[in-house]
Amino acid sequence: MSRIAYVNGCYVPHNNAAVHIEDRGYQFSDGVYEVIAVHKGVLIDEAGHMVRLERSLRELEIAWPVAPRALGGIMRQVARRNHIHDGIVYLQITRGVAPRNHAFPDHQNSALVITARRGAPFDPEQARRGVDVITIPEIRWRRRDIKTISLLPNCLGKQQAVRAGAYEAWFVDDQGLITEGTSSNAWIVGADGVLRTRHVGNQILNGITRISVLKIAADLGLEFAEEAFSVPAAKAAREAFVTSTTSFVKAVVKIDGGAVADGKPGELAATLLDRYGQHMNRQLADVQ
Amino acid sequence: MSRIAYVNGCYVPHNNAAVHIEDRGYQFSDGVYEVIAVHKGVLIDEAGHMVRLERSLRELEIAWPVAPRALGGIMRQVARRNHIHDGIVYLQITRGVAPRNHAFPDHQNSALVITARRGAPFDPEQARRGVDVITIPEIRWRRRDIKTISLLPNCLGKQQAVRAGAYEAWFVDDQGLITEGTSSNAWIVGADGVLRTRHVGNQILNGITRISVLKIAADLGLEFAEEAFSVPAAKAAREAFVTSTTSFVKAVVKIDGGAVADGKPGELAATLLDRYGQHMNRQLADVQ
Repeated sequence: MSRIAYVNGCYVPHNNAAVHIEDRGYQFSDGVYEVIAVHKGVLIDEAGHMVRLERSLRELEIAWPVAPRALGGIMRQVARRNHIHDGIVYLQITRGVAPRNHAFPDHQNSALVITARRGAPFDPEQARRGVDVITIPEIRWRRRDIKTISLLPNCLGKQQAVRAGAYEAWFVDDQGLITEGTSSNAWIVGADGVLRTRHVGNQILNGITRISVLKIAADLGLEFAEEAFSVPAAKAAREAFVTSTTSFVKAVVKIDGGAVADGKPGELAATLLDRYGQHMNRQLADVQ
Repeated sequence: MSRIAYVNGCYVPHNNAAVHIEDRGYQFSDGVYEVIAVHKGVLIDEAGHMVRLERSLRELEIAWPVAPRALGGIMRQVARRNHIHDGIVYLQITRGVAPRNHAFPDHQNSALVITARRGAPFDPEQARRGVDVITIPEIRWRRRDIKTISLLPNCLGKQQAVRAGAYEAWFVDDQGLITEGTSSNAWIVGADGVLRTRHVGNQILNGITRISVLKIAADLGLEFAEEAFSVPAAKAAREAFVTSTTSFVKAVVKIDGGAVADGKPGELAATLLDRYGQHMNRQLADVQ
């Protein structure tokens, strides 16, 4: 079965899916994106992703390529045509094609690309396995709250992690505080037992999984704080983990080569992962 | 006459020139570029652009898409096929097509796109007209020395300039010092008569025109310093100007709405522009 992509109004074979060389996404990274998990055929937290997408577009003054309402239907269509039961839908919107010039074109004709990819079904056992992270200097621009395709520093950071045999790299700002991972949010359960993840602002992307896990933490009556934490605090933590659309809640067992606590995935991470699985399953019930 | 673009080995009509949606340039801004002036049919400072391109590729570990030597021939071919007497050649290299994943793909197949565009012939009278600039906060990433296509903040800055009725925006760092423009280097002749442009490092791109103008300044025996200058210093300057491949040497007559000196293009900028024209003309002689 050949994959199908949606490109500017057409469903086309993935291999032939192309955009113009003067698409501003290609020349300027002038665009935004979302990655949405598909769990048992259902788009997870679709509404949250659409709220964030709307904000990203607004911040960059990029016009909607289609009516916001139509997007969900196209995403489901792409998932269906690719027979995605579990996996992801990837959506990218750019300011469209225009003769190369840094300033915005007078007439925007936003471009829309949507793809889907199969992934392994959600498996708590698998997801519970711990991963390593490294820490690297924060070198990105100052509007990390916008989910743009300007991801070169994230790629460079992830590559550093891969070379170090790690799963993720955490960016550390000039104050020595962790901002977030290259494609995930960073969390710890501090030595004081408080669950922490950095507060939102321009410094981090407000992950959709981050928002869900904060809600779960509140439901569980956990003590948590949205505040930045240092590298030493992370290394001395009781637990550490990352959250993202594709990592769900993933325990971190080593930071820069040193074990977090006893070096085994933490209990709270396991609990949050289970609850997150329930959170996804509830959405299956909602659409049935 | 329809325009022709070079895309990964083929010369194709510009309107049909396309790249795959999973080209890492489109999804991650994982690529670099150069803009080279064509003056009377000749590529200006080609060697300097190639040296910088080599450095950009090396810094990002992107493989050459073709042998470095072959690039010049392709660029000239694109210029010729588009009948460019005066204008620019645009060259973009990305890490190529791969399933979306932040880390580098195991097998890189770098993508190469080259286009050419006509522009007005070099006209000292026209070039001598002064322009306005505004100052804006520096929000870009910390590797501005690499000429990447990760240009979203530059686009946002240029758009601010356009909205303010200005030609360019100068980024100002946390120390209150000007780094550079969104697509040009920034220069002043200070109140002390010293010609200044920011020193190279990770904070600015080392412009090819910047390098040429520094050589000209040395040849003229001018007192100059490669050092950062503040916004107040720029506003109190005797002269200000920008340099870039497409702006050559362009006098700045207003900064944030306030006149620089008497509000007329400076004499040194005019001299440097003339000399820069000679610098270009000498290259015509070299190839004849």
